[in-house]
Amino acid sequence: MMDQDTICAVATAQGGAIASIRVSGPQAIDITGKIFTPSKSGKRLEEQAPYTLTFGRIYDGEELADEALVSLFRAPHSYTGENSTEISCHGSPYILQQVMQLLIRNGCRTAQPGEFTQRAFLNGKIDLSQAEAVADLIASTSAAAHRLAISQMKGGFSKELAGLRGQLLNFTSMIELELDFSEEDVEFADRKELSRLAGNIEGIIARLVNSFSVGNAIRNGVPVAIIGETNAGKSTLLNVLLNEEKAIVSEIHGTTRDAIEDTVNIKGVTFRFIDTAGIRDTEDTIENLGIERTFRKIEQAEIVLWVMDSRNMHKQIRRLSSRILPLVENKQLIFVLNKTDLLSAGPDKERTTLFADLVTRENIRYIFISAKQRIQTDRLQQMLVEAAHLPTVTQNDVIVTNVRHYEALTKALEAIHRVRQGLKTHISGDFLAQDIREAIFHLNDIIGEVTNDQVLKNIFEHFCIGK
Amino acid sequence: MMDQDTICAVATAQGGAIASIRVSGPQAIDITGKIFTPSKSGKRLEEQAPYTLTFGRIYDGEELADEALVSLFRAPHSYTGENSTEISCHGSPYILQQVMQLLIRNGCRTAQPGEFTQRAFLNGKIDLSQAEAVADLIASTSAAAHRLAISQMKGGFSKELAGLRGQLLNFTSMIELELDFSEEDVEFADRKELSRLAGNIEGIIARLVNSFSVGNAIRNGVPVAIIGETNAGKSTLLNVLLNEEKAIVSEIHGTTRDAIEDTVNIKGVTFRFIDTAGIRDTEDTIENLGIERTFRKIEQAEIVLWVMDSRNMHKQIRRLSSRILPLVENKQLIFVLNKTDLLSAGPDKERTTLFADLVTRENIRYIFISAKQRIQTDRLQQMLVEAAHLPTVTQNDVIVTNVRHYEALTKALEAIHRVRQGLKTHISGDFLAQDIREAIFHLNDIIGEVTNDQVLKNIFEHFCIGK
Repeated sequence: MMDQDTICAVATAQGGAIASIRVSGPQAIDITGKIFTPSKSGKRLEEQAPYTLTFGRIYDGEELADEALVSLFRAPHSYTGENSTEISCHGSPYILQQVMQLLIRNGCRTAQPGEFTQRAFLNGKIDLSQAEAVADLIASTSAAAHRLAISQMKGGFSKELAGLRGQLLNFTSMIELELDFSEEDVEFADRKELSRLAGNIEGIIARLVNSFSVGNAIRNGVPVAIIGETNAGKSTLLNVLLNEEKAIVSEIHGTTRDAIEDTVNIKGVTFRFIDTAGIRDTEDTIENLGIERTFRKIEQAEIVLWVMDSRNMHKQIRRLSSRILPLVENKQLIFVLNKTDLLSAGPDKERTTLFADLVTRENIRYIFISAKQRIQTDRLQQMLVEAAHLPTVTQNDVIVTNVRHYEALTKALEAIHRVRQGLKTHISGDFLAQDIREAIFHLNDIIGEVTNDQVLKNIFEHFCIGK
Repeated sequence: MMDQDTICAVATAQGGAIASIRVSGPQAIDITGKIFTPSKSGKRLEEQAPYTLTFGRIYDGEELADEALVSLFRAPHSYTGENSTEISCHGSPYILQQVMQLLIRNGCRTAQPGEFTQRAFLNGKIDLSQAEAVADLIASTSAAAHRLAISQMKGGFSKELAGLRGQLLNFTSMIELELDFSEEDVEFADRKELSRLAGNIEGIIARLVNSFSVGNAIRNGVPVAIIGETNAGKSTLLNVLLNEEKAIVSEIHGTTRDAIEDTVNIKGVTFRFIDTAGIRDTEDTIENLGIERTFRKIEQAEIVLWVMDSRNMHKQIRRLSSRILPLVENKQLIFVLNKTDLLSAGPDKERTTLFADLVTRENIRYIFISAKQRIQTDRLQQMLVEAAHLPTVTQNDVIVTNVRHYEALTKALEAIHRVRQGLKTHISGDFLAQDIREAIFHLNDIIGEVTNDQVLKNIFEHFCIGK
């Protein structure tokens, strides 16, 4: 499995005081030793002990490229499991380019995105779900997302899967015992016991599958749709929500997220605003509102902010509530009555009474605000956090955050469901065993017990270079 | 002199796979040890040998913040000369914020820009000009700028200054010997010998002062003014020059440069385009051209690109050459005859002949191009490099690149010049000694032999955080 190339990459972002270049592979120490001269006369780099730092100079022929500190690791006691070095030098783009060129000239090749972590996986240092957690960890911008990534990196999820696999293998062995004696038409396996075991396994997998909506909301943000007519002030509201808190959510390139959406962290909860550009473009009249598009946005959302101009809210509710309310039955709806600064006397009794009637269920809330004047926008943020009603997670919780894992678990769940049905209808052990094997196959897929190159490529190409 | 605080800062840029947090000060190892638990049971961080790496986990109470590698250095064998650690962890903004908060909660404070290097200076690890070279090294984007920064960091400049100081001190002791016996009215010091020595010193300082124009051009870019009438295509030309090569010159925050100007690296030479916004804004008619502003731009430039529309170049030259040509006598002038794509028959004989007359001296060149169609723009770039006529520098050359050094050397030069004049006019030893002391004072200023807080503040506030 081991790739014999020695790879190198700048592992830190460009523009800092210090930068770090990682080198890994059989020749890592030799190649680094060729371009690096320790300052203290004495041992060459190749003779240094592992887990030591050596100060010295990087030369390009006669020319000094930089002073650097080199960290040294020997296989298998390194991140990748291979011989590795980390060259810590000054963060000048010119120097980094020069050092990379020197390494390549001496036999390295540039690493692919995620290739260090891929090697760690291929060399058995971590399983596939742990490797994926590394990318999540780097991308984490909230305490909750960080906790889930840490839990997965520590192997909490892998352990849960290992437990499940144990139970499934136990199940298989019971079934296979029966198959061995099938000609004698004896049911060795206690079908009642098998049924109990399958029910137990199904329960665990179902819990994991169901945890994905929370896991996905934590990792990628709770999806929020801002809907409403054009003049309601939707984009002003969005800007208020984004600008006030955007500082923490900085742009991170090359992570597992497909794209940086309008994402914001409010009081520790990440929110993701759906298709904002489209919302900003809604047309002028209610006929052209593109109600279909609004419907699609609502479908993707967990929280819907229906923004209205307080001055003509009655009209808007009359027009649209019969069409929108049925769509949000299983979602959280917040009526955002905007532009209160333009109401001559503020939100009057007639206005608030209207909502006392509409807000009949727990999942509907309303608030009068002025996005422009930032009146009550703090309270709206708090309301968003309440509507998200994400559970507090700990580093011990096992929650599925990855769509690949979710899909594999869903398939495993279908297989185990067939097993339970089969047990009820007294299907033959052959078929049961086939479904159990399928369930095991999908679980193995998650931790990378058996994988193909395409799966690995898909996973690691979303990593940053240098990780 | 030593600051007793323990400081910490993220030393790498945000957004990478890996990030590094530096901690330095008397408590650096203790504080890091409080938040970091080595993975291998056994020694605590505080018990590790210097120049070792320890793998382990950073905890925030019960919660795992990240897995990390900690580098350990003990005073005085570190960059700052103090106890230091470097915490290499995953590059998530959330994690970095958490680790920084943990360090601060345990007794660190956030480092000021350049504070690590400032401590290295205060602890005698490097002199002030070497400290300044560190910032230049990080900011260097061309081979030549890199070479000059390396030379200065290695202490080439300091050595040159030390040699000068030696000569000046020698001079002083000769003068003072004379002063001791002044009542006897004896000239112990051989005034001819003194004169030779002063001439020698003046020669060296003058060479350093004169090297600044080259040093500044290499470090900050050769100043180029693009002048011409509004419709000549100046901004198109600028964009062509910038876009084609800008990749190497990336934005670096917090370096010694005041601002990122329109700077571009062409074949290893950095060019800096002066006051581009102003140039882009030139008015419509020749009367409003703001000829005064153009004059000022020419003054700051070493190379002037005078851009004209080839179709009406005669008229433009007639109007302006009598006013512009006298200003560029000591500069490089390139006539850029643009928009050749709009000439029906290309540059004709009449047009080229006009320039054969104008280009009478080595410092004047001309070229017909089409910026829009990128015709001959490669050749123009080559012409710029020729006009810059920067010498090839090596890491052994001592060239002044820093305006602070330039100013100090200029003052030292004035003082030594007064000494030579004084020797000629047989001025008393008292006055000579005073001027010599002044020259020494200015040289000491450069390497930071005696400095005040304000000088240090001015220098280090232009550094990046974490360096």
